[in-house]
Amino acid sequence: MATLVDIAVSAAINLLSALIFLLAFAILRIQPFNDRVYFPKWYLKGLRSKALKMPEPELIDHAGLDSAVYLRIYLMGLKIFVPIAFLAWAVLVPVNYTNDTLKIAQLVSNVTASDIDKLSISNVPLKSQRFWTHIVMAYAFTFWTCRVLLKEYEKVASMRLQFLSAEGRRPDQFTVLVRNVPPDPDESVSELVEHFFLVNHPHHYLTHQNGHLFVLSLVYCVNIYCWGDLWEMVLDIKDTSYFLDELSVATHPSVSSFRLNSKGLGKGLVMEEAKCGSHMVVCNANKLASLVKKKKSKKNWRDYYQLKYDRNPLQRPLKKTGFLGLWGEKVDVIDHHTSEIEKLSEEIEEERERVLKDPKSIMPAAFVSFKTRWGAAVCAQTQQSRNPTLWLTEWAPEPRDVYWENLSIPYMSLSVRRLIIVVAFFFLTIFFMIPIASVQALASIEGIEKRAPFLKPVIEIKFIKSVIQGFLPGIALKLFLIFLPTILMIMSKFEGFLSISSLERRSATRYYIFLIINVFFGSILTGAAFEQLNSFIKQSANEIPKTIGVAVPLKATFFITYIMVDGWAGIAGEVLMLKPLILYHLKNIFLVKTEKDREEAMDPGSLGFNTGEPRIQLYFLLGLVYATVTPILLPFIIIFFAFAYVVFRHQIINVYNQEYESGAAFWPDVHGRVITALVISQLALLGLMSTKEAAQSAPFLIALPVLTIWFHRFCQGRHKSAFVKYPLQEAMMKDTLERARDPNFNLKPYLQDAYIHPVFKGGDDDDEDDDLSKKLESDSVLVPTKRQSRKNTPAPSRISKASSPSLSEVVKDGDP
Amino acid sequence: MATLVDIAVSAAINLLSALIFLLAFAILRIQPFNDRVYFPKWYLKGLRSKALKMPEPELIDHAGLDSAVYLRIYLMGLKIFVPIAFLAWAVLVPVNYTNDTLKIAQLVSNVTASDIDKLSISNVPLKSQRFWTHIVMAYAFTFWTCRVLLKEYEKVASMRLQFLSAEGRRPDQFTVLVRNVPPDPDESVSELVEHFFLVNHPHHYLTHQNGHLFVLSLVYCVNIYCWGDLWEMVLDIKDTSYFLDELSVATHPSVSSFRLNSKGLGKGLVMEEAKCGSHMVVCNANKLASLVKKKKSKKNWRDYYQLKYDRNPLQRPLKKTGFLGLWGEKVDVIDHHTSEIEKLSEEIEEERERVLKDPKSIMPAAFVSFKTRWGAAVCAQTQQSRNPTLWLTEWAPEPRDVYWENLSIPYMSLSVRRLIIVVAFFFLTIFFMIPIASVQALASIEGIEKRAPFLKPVIEIKFIKSVIQGFLPGIALKLFLIFLPTILMIMSKFEGFLSISSLERRSATRYYIFLIINVFFGSILTGAAFEQLNSFIKQSANEIPKTIGVAVPLKATFFITYIMVDGWAGIAGEVLMLKPLILYHLKNIFLVKTEKDREEAMDPGSLGFNTGEPRIQLYFLLGLVYATVTPILLPFIIIFFAFAYVVFRHQIINVYNQEYESGAAFWPDVHGRVITALVISQLALLGLMSTKEAAQSAPFLIALPVLTIWFHRFCQGRHKSAFVKYPLQEAMMKDTLERARDPNFNLKPYLQDAYIHPVFKGGDDDDEDDDLSKKLESDSVLVPTKRQSRKNTPAPSRISKASSPSLSEVVKDGDP
Repeated sequence: MATLVDIAVSAAINLLSALIFLLAFAILRIQPFNDRVYFPKWYLKGLRSKALKMPEPELIDHAGLDSAVYLRIYLMGLKIFVPIAFLAWAVLVPVNYTNDTLKIAQLVSNVTASDIDKLSISNVPLKSQRFWTHIVMAYAFTFWTCRVLLKEYEKVASMRLQFLSAEGRRPDQFTVLVRNVPPDPDESVSELVEHFFLVNHPHHYLTHQNGHLFVLSLVYCVNIYCWGDLWEMVLDIKDTSYFLDELSVATHPSVSSFRLNSKGLGKGLVMEEAKCGSHMVVCNANKLASLVKKKKSKKNWRDYYQLKYDRNPLQRPLKKTGFLGLWGEKVDVIDHHTSEIEKLSEEIEEERERVLKDPKSIMPAAFVSFKTRWGAAVCAQTQQSRNPTLWLTEWAPEPRDVYWENLSIPYMSLSVRRLIIVVAFFFLTIFFMIPIASVQALASIEGIEKRAPFLKPVIEIKFIKSVIQGFLPGIALKLFLIFLPTILMIMSKFEGFLSISSLERRSATRYYIFLIINVFFGSILTGAAFEQLNSFIKQSANEIPKTIGVAVPLKATFFITYIMVDGWAGIAGEVLMLKPLILYHLKNIFLVKTEKDREEAMDPGSLGFNTGEPRIQLYFLLGLVYATVTPILLPFIIIFFAFAYVVFRHQIINVYNQEYESGAAFWPDVHGRVITALVISQLALLGLMSTKEAAQSAPFLIALPVLTIWFHRFCQGRHKSAFVKYPLQEAMMKDTLERARDPNFNLKPYLQDAYIHPVFKGGDDDDEDDDLSKKLESDSVLVPTKRQSRKNTPAPSRISKASSPSLSEVVKDGDP
Repeated sequence: MATLVDIAVSAAINLLSALIFLLAFAILRIQPFNDRVYFPKWYLKGLRSKALKMPEPELIDHAGLDSAVYLRIYLMGLKIFVPIAFLAWAVLVPVNYTNDTLKIAQLVSNVTASDIDKLSISNVPLKSQRFWTHIVMAYAFTFWTCRVLLKEYEKVASMRLQFLSAEGRRPDQFTVLVRNVPPDPDESVSELVEHFFLVNHPHHYLTHQNGHLFVLSLVYCVNIYCWGDLWEMVLDIKDTSYFLDELSVATHPSVSSFRLNSKGLGKGLVMEEAKCGSHMVVCNANKLASLVKKKKSKKNWRDYYQLKYDRNPLQRPLKKTGFLGLWGEKVDVIDHHTSEIEKLSEEIEEERERVLKDPKSIMPAAFVSFKTRWGAAVCAQTQQSRNPTLWLTEWAPEPRDVYWENLSIPYMSLSVRRLIIVVAFFFLTIFFMIPIASVQALASIEGIEKRAPFLKPVIEIKFIKSVIQGFLPGIALKLFLIFLPTILMIMSKFEGFLSISSLERRSATRYYIFLIINVFFGSILTGAAFEQLNSFIKQSANEIPKTIGVAVPLKATFFITYIMVDGWAGIAGEVLMLKPLILYHLKNIFLVKTEKDREEAMDPGSLGFNTGEPRIQLYFLLGLVYATVTPILLPFIIIFFAFAYVVFRHQIINVYNQEYESGAAFWPDVHGRVITALVISQLALLGLMSTKEAAQSAPFLIALPVLTIWFHRFCQGRHKSAFVKYPLQEAMMKDTLERARDPNFNLKPYLQDAYIHPVFKGGDDDDEDDDLSKKLESDSVLVPTKRQSRKNTPAPSRISKASSPSLSEVVKDGDP
């Protein structure tokens, strides 16, 4: 048991290490050659400003709503825990401290108890009336947490709606992703999609404006035409100008072919006009992507030799064509690469044509655009066809957020994949220790000696022996934990999510479950997950909270240390960015051949929602669990949240590059996890109380989880739809406003190329990039250390189509 | 332990009682004076046909899809259990019977075992390899059940879609129920609804056709107008013909008032044209309803005296006006009642006016109609406003299905009510025995003697004593069980459901949970629910299935008896309709004054989904649980399903009156409950196996519940939306078809009066009914015993607006 002094020493050490990190950061960041590590965002955005002085709206402009709301999680931590800490210290600490239980226990049975335990609930004697205080406090803490959660949910929901409605025109506002287009023997996916939406969303589907009504009426006509015995009826009403009889349809100049609707409403007429409807089918472009990659590498080499030649124009670089340039004919490298690039370009063009034309490479999915946001909102929220597994519609993610590989998974396969992943994740979480333990056994001295006896003399050397003993067993676990987020991400990808943001959200959920089971419960109950599971199965439902409740106060010291090591020092390590720093300089020395390589060596990273958020949630869990039990833990949590807030604010403003903008779609998850933590804390307290023989007071705690879960459902009903649906009122408002502002805007060309698989624009962009980077290089030669020089980089177009703040705004606040 | 002979005797007795019931039914039903008990449906529908010879499509026409699909539940029972029974008898019974475990046990320890046990799993020795058979069979049964479930889900979903699309024009196809209209200080609910939908569903909201576009453009204009600094922009584009500037709006003849949109888009212009948009606001008409009821009773009395006077024209009936006619002035009763009726009519008219005009009596809900089914489908499936608790839209239930009292509950209140009901239901289910036990204690001899010592001499009489001892304690429980469905229905009403069908569905779910806990587990574990709960809390998660698994085979005999008494005899009792028979004749003798009273004395009843379906589900549960354990139970289940199918088919065709048509919306519940039963049966088998020390084979069962739950999720994803949503493709198809069939149909008057609170049309209908029934009376005097004479009753209009089958169709199949 650690005493207060121990904790203080540990805190001092950790604070010191944090300070050292910060100091190192302070020194390293002012070195210009580290700029690309510590201020990559300014290179990407082409502007500069100071951290920590940005008001929230500007932060949203600068780094996106996702990042701004992500910071609010830390703020929420402070909002929850600062008042709770004050209350706990003012009420619970005196109540706990003014008992003699531990002192007596020490005297009687020689039990060692630290000062920390004297401040905790362990110091209150059995059957004491003082437990009422803890129960009242539990209610107060729950009430306060829920209040903050509700306010934050409200605030974030309104921020999201505000953000969505304040945004400029964006392709995803008009676009719906359609999946599981049913196969059809007669029509291509493209035609099928076109006809389906012409028929079922006639007023809203975006087509050429001229001939629109005409197309419609034809579709109606044909649909009725094929309605069995209704043919006469259609002929009867041909006198209304909207309906044309068979003859005039067949001879009309704009009709290229004419077919009866033999298999339902999804089809109609194939018309010249109708063909230009705005939707993009999704192609399977894996081969194309590999060709593009190859071309890029060749280009890079050519640039390198070109640069070499430019510096030393006397000697044209030569190279053998064989393996690794070791044999074969000697050729002029620059010419050789140029010709190869040309060859590849042709191949790519061919492949591109093939992909676009070959019906087999077209996946049964499409991005369908509508004339109005209202039309898109309607289509995204409704069911299209009888069969709910066909013609699935949902909001299209941002173009850069689309995860292209998953767009064509059929429904049945999706649900099988989900089952597989659920089972796999269960085993991963519960039994992950088993393979690691066996690897550890192999990696031990005995294991190695048994398997590879010839290594025995080497191993027996004392230094190597100690390395193996101290290092190898640990490294297996460490490696697993490092790769865990990647494993979880692969799981989510396999499960078939359609956007990077949803992949990350799902991975975050899984990571959180893993942390709760293996870190929180694992530390409290000190046993691997499958051992816990085994003992839980054998224990009664009554006993489980008791087991946890009893163990919680005993582990307070451990978790305080954990917060300091993982939280404080970890955050300080984050700001130092040691790994990107080293990697960047290594790359710079060995790999960087051209300016473009340098751009690529720069690794701004991103927020990493899938790992970062679950870790924060662990602190929420610790704070809530220990608030009533060992309030001394709370200040450590508060310091963590405050410190992390400052650091991540800096990182978001100066370092991280936003990969996508989901509009804070992750908030319901964040909210749900804090609620989970709250319920766990209540159950643990309930268990603890029932072992304290506080039979009178304990039952009053049963209502807490019920009320908390009800509160959660209430919040979800009240606010979740803001993160899932898009109200028609908003859509209509924006449409109306836009029509008034810009009545002649032609949406069609605007949306035409929005959702194209990256490889289809890759090639051209590449060339541009090349040109750009060359152009920029000369710039940077002139003023190499001034980041402001990047102001004229047209780079923003590479990062996002979202509105970046206008220069004047940023400059205004730039230098205070 | 009952032997096979005992069971056979019991079966014979129960079959005999069922036969007696059927015989009584056969005799009673041919008595013409019982026609109104056994064939009320023919009176209501005005036609006659023979039972059991109707093919399904005709049955749907005759009794509605709900009834037809309800019958499919019994059929599904047969489809599941007939093959399972064959397989079980062919495989499991021999495997169980060819062991000597019980014989040896009998010899060794004098344990009594019946023949039934010899056929059950109890006869297989511990650690036997034969348990593999049971496990394979469990997989086979699960597979077969799931297969039947999937096929049925598919079939019912397609029947529902078929039904919805084959139906004629119905008001609810075009109508959406809007709740939680936000309060507004300036506008009435009606105006607010009108403006909101004009703005947000401009092309689809049903308004007068003329002036429609004009109204739209004005609304657009005003909406833009109030958009802060955008006013100039609007003035700039006034040259396009759709937009008018302020001046021309203000002076336009059709504009009656003009107001800026100061609080959002929900408001626009108050225009003469726009006012006629088709939506009905919901009024609070409780006082009105009571007045109408009073008037009806007065009318009834007047009719009675009129009849009396007609029979004896010499003496005009006189009556004193005071209390019960005991004192006061003597008046001519007929005149007196006539004048009172007139007075009431005036009052009703006044109240009706008041309700319609008084803004306080208008509830914040409305039925909004659209021009097309497409428009209604879109509105019902989308979120309208930013705040997801305002402007809630959902499909309007059928007019006769609406539960008017609940239309105006605000969101917050709804979610509090839900919490209250969840808690209340928990206590009701778990602790219902406690108050009953205390009532029973009071009602016992000792209780009565203690409370009321003066009754002692009376109680001590032997006959009365035995009545009290044998009767009173039981009656408390019986009364509770009789009132349970009503209590559950009240709970559902309090919870705030909007249609009678959803009220019944929710009550059914609760009743099912109650039956599982208190009948199934209650019988197996022989303890009140709270005792079970207590022991479950104290048992480990591992032990619970074991406890259940061990008890299951022991209770086989009990459940066989239960099936025979509750199932067989109960069903036979259902067809006899003893209660309605007695009540009808009692009413006929004492209460019936007029022909109208006779109509009302007739009580056809209805299907009673909220009690009937959960009871069927109990048989599914028993069948699935015992299929692997004691297969001898299966034939009893099969007989129940077959018998019940025949009886309920008869009842649905000849007796029950359809109260609403939900289009089989209950099927997902039915499906879910069979899945629940399946999972319970698997867990029980798993528990049983693990006590049989079949350690090798038992773990293979763990995958079964996982797969079953996955199957359930798959089915819900695949088919549930057919019961919740309405695909746009269908809607568009019907709209298009209708436009072709009937291009000039004016929807507006058709929908105008569809959703009016019953009391608002009540008064007038009453008068008509009176006239009709008088007219009919003379008819029935001529041919009093011929039911065919009712063919010309215009009664169908009273029952439903749904399409009743054309006479020719029914007559065609009527007399084979």
